[in-house]
Amino acid sequence: MLEQLKEQVYRANMQLPEYGLVTFTWGNVSGIDRESGLFVIKPSGVAYEELKPSDMVVMDLLGNKVEGDLNPSTDTDTHLELYKAFPEVGGIVHTHSPYAVAWAQAGKDIPCYGTTHADYFYGDVPCARNLTQEEIDEGYEKNTGKVIIEAFRDRNPMYVPGVVCRNHGPFTWGKDCFAAVYHAVVLEEIAKMDILTERVDPKAARCPQEILDKHFLRKHGPNAYYGQAGH
Amino acid sequence: MLEQLKEQVYRANMQLPEYGLVTFTWGNVSGIDRESGLFVIKPSGVAYEELKPSDMVVMDLLGNKVEGDLNPSTDTDTHLELYKAFPEVGGIVHTHSPYAVAWAQAGKDIPCYGTTHADYFYGDVPCARNLTQEEIDEGYEKNTGKVIIEAFRDRNPMYVPGVVCRNHGPFTWGKDCFAAVYHAVVLEEIAKMDILTERVDPKAARCPQEILDKHFLRKHGPNAYYGQAGH
Amino acid sequence: MLEQLKEQVYRANMQLPEYGLVTFTWGNVSGIDRESGLFVIKPSGVAYEELKPSDMVVMDLLGNKVEGDLNPSTDTDTHLELYKAFPEVGGIVHTHSPYAVAWAQAGKDIPCYGTTHADYFYGDVPCARNLTQEEIDEGYEKNTGKVIIEAFRDRNPMYVPGVVCRNHGPFTWGKDCFAAVYHAVVLEEIAKMDILTERVDPKAARCPQEILDKHFLRKHGPNAYYGQAGH
Amino acid sequence: MLEQLKEQVYRANMQLPEYGLVTFTWGNVSGIDRESGLFVIKPSGVAYEELKPSDMVVMDLLGNKVEGDLNPSTDTDTHLELYKAFPEVGGIVHTHSPYAVAWAQAGKDIPCYGTTHADYFYGDVPCARNLTQEEIDEGYEKNTGKVIIEAFRDRNPMYVPGVVCRNHGPFTWGKDCFAAVYHAVVLEEIAKMDILTERVDPKAARCPQEILDKHFLRKHGPNAYYGQAGH
Repeated sequence: MLEQLKEQVYRANMQLPEYGLVTFTWGNVSGIDRESGLFVIKPSGVAYEELKPSDMVVMDLLGNKVEGDLNPSTDTDTHLELYKAFPEVGGIVHTHSPYAVAWAQAGKDIPCYGTTHADYFYGDVPCARNLTQEEIDEGYEKNTGKVIIEAFRDRNPMYVPGVVCRNHGPFTWGKDCFAAVYHAVVLEEIAKMDILTERVDPKAARCPQEILDKHFLRKHGPNAYYGQAGH
Repeated sequence: MLEQLKEQVYRANMQLPEYGLVTFTWGNVSGIDRESGLFVIKPSGVAYEELKPSDMVVMDLLGNKVEGDLNPSTDTDTHLELYKAFPEVGGIVHTHSPYAVAWAQAGKDIPCYGTTHADYFYGDVPCARNLTQEEIDEGYEKNTGKVIIEAFRDRNPMYVPGVVCRNHGPFTWGKDCFAAVYHAVVLEEIAKMDILTERVDPKAARCPQEILDKHFLRKHGPNAYYGQAGH
Repeated sequence: MLEQLKEQVYRANMQLPEYGLVTFTWGNVSGIDRESGLFVIKPSGVAYEELKPSDMVVMDLLGNKVEGDLNPSTDTDTHLELYKAFPEVGGIVHTHSPYAVAWAQAGKDIPCYGTTHADYFYGDVPCARNLTQEEIDEGYEKNTGKVIIEAFRDRNPMYVPGVVCRNHGPFTWGKDCFAAVYHAVVLEEIAKMDILTERVDPKAARCPQEILDKHFLRKHGPNAYYGQAGH
Repeated sequence: MLEQLKEQVYRANMQLPEYGLVTFTWGNVSGIDRESGLFVIKPSGVAYEELKPSDMVVMDLLGNKVEGDLNPSTDTDTHLELYKAFPEVGGIVHTHSPYAVAWAQAGKDIPCYGTTHADYFYGDVPCARNLTQEEIDEGYEKNTGKVIIEAFRDRNPMYVPGVVCRNHGPFTWGKDCFAAVYHAVVLEEIAKMDILTERVDPKAARCPQEILDKHFLRKHGPNAYYGQAGH
């Protein structure tokens, strides 16, 4: 069942240690098949060096396990909420990559200081708020998804494909699981660049709007001209 | 004698350079067999690339060498005190990993800023005080253990499995030598994340208590649901 | 056509990931054949692990593609402007290496604090200004070249073989494509050293002029005595 | 001639890139044979990946090349002055390792904040002053040695086996070339730890004298008990 997607989600999970984004089991990737409404996710607490494609767990959007011998990631309900709220999203990543975590722990949006950021994120990467005691009790992982969605009330999630959750860490997404991993790498890199930027000048100013527009639209949308797409 | 434990302690020692936690010989791991009351520890000053399982030194809890051709780690008396005071501890690690050392040298507890910390350490990681001249003269390594124990008068060492010793560096522990190494990796990672967090916001606030509770108890105790344990 | 130069530019491009200067496709190298007035550049958006010498694109100095199946780098017009304005330049590199980006994002010149810098850059590395809306609309990549040239009105580009572009990142150059990559590595290294220096002392003073003179002239010009050149 | 020493100095030079202390050719190691009064040093500007034992250059203490096809390191006269002034030194290293350079560029002594430092350097690592214009003109490399010696007027170079030269970088030494490399690694590591320490607390206090005494003397002198020496 969904053998190709399981293989893809497995490979996307393995990219997390390859890109140096995870320590131990601190990360997970999922991917969704929009036709069947089923998504595939890493099992909980399994070491990357022991992970196999057949370990991947298949879930439906009601939260039922449809296939798999292992428990799905504890963060499964967060992925589920995002898939329900963001219909264009095809893959989701969660990590504890240290530079992104620093912004999450400081409770600050990651400012758009330059073109590396603007090439992939159209504006600041928001920091989602903490859950209340009630939200934690009612469903910690589900409500983590809800506060992310709340942070995107006025944002297009396909234009800003990631978030840092207060006191926790980053989630990123994309059209498929590989795009989500790609954005996880970009997010960690810009989180690092921005910390270094503020070290050089604590009062550094954001990138001007016209540069942000130029770079984002050079790579995205009908007038994009980066790469070999129009080739 | 204790061949299996010597093999395990050897492998746990070799994990220190694998995880990038040690330069030269600046680290050591021990593990205890509670039944016999004997513990196994790395020999002093032997390079990791030359270390063999048969080099491991067997000690009793009175500080006598029971087996081994080499001198035990100079830190042996610190390990010994911790084994005597913390009966649930099965393995201990000491390193000079640089981010944890920074907190030790600054003489500050490592604050719990987020869930990466909360998943493994239930609250701040304490900084143990310096020894007095008398304590140094009377037994430096033994009294290093004593001041660690002093820092845990009001803490459960199984809930906060590590410490930084003022002007020195980290010690971590766990149910066995591999858990102790695991906690050494986590401690270095959160020490790094917290330095980056304070770079982003020098007035960063600690993680709320309810998040700390949620994350620690999601992984520990009777209601834990992370991983495949209940599987 | 220009097979040797294509091979060289290919190899120089591959040095970028080898030296850890690029993430994904965030960099490009070109090299020029001054006799024919043609230059060779990386294609746009092609992953380094899939790049082949035959993928290299040949351009003339009017901006026409002379040979190649793929689109040239989006930054081609920036390279072109620099080749036209700086006749001694034989190769150009652009990256998003994070320490150099930090200075670009902070909008600051990289100060000459010591001999590592003075050995290769005769004085501060300038930060070129942002483009105006008109300049962006009229030709973003071409005008990126123009503002770099503006920053070198009073500087010799062979004495200061690099720049950081405001809110963007570094460009470096040299007598050929390999020298340009060499300077990209040096620039990232001094960008890092200078951030660390200001961490140690935010009021650190620039290297005295006489040290700058000594070190630059020990390696460059008729009285140079470093290396085996006079051998 | 001195084949064994040339082999040793070659291997010690190769340790610099292995330990990540050098970029390109920015480092050199020498070793002396006190009996003959000859020392062996890396040739100038030769890439490490191409270096061979037979490339090593043999010098006498008057600065004459005694054997070798290549020019010796440009820093040869600095090594020479140190060998003449410090009779117990058997090997010398110079690098541009970035954390040590940061202290050099900031013009500050590296403070002794903890036991990692105290285990190898008995007190602060001094920052040698800049040369005057006259000293530069009279002999830059020789006078670099002289100002290092000046910084050790009140220090024992075998107790503090290294220095950072203002606006330049570190020199370290030891009883032989391998000990000098060892100290270069330690110096870079403590330079990093100390920058991190001041990030945690800009007003961090030095390690108490009694801890410094204890750790240095645990490893050095007649009462040392670290390692397997007394075994």
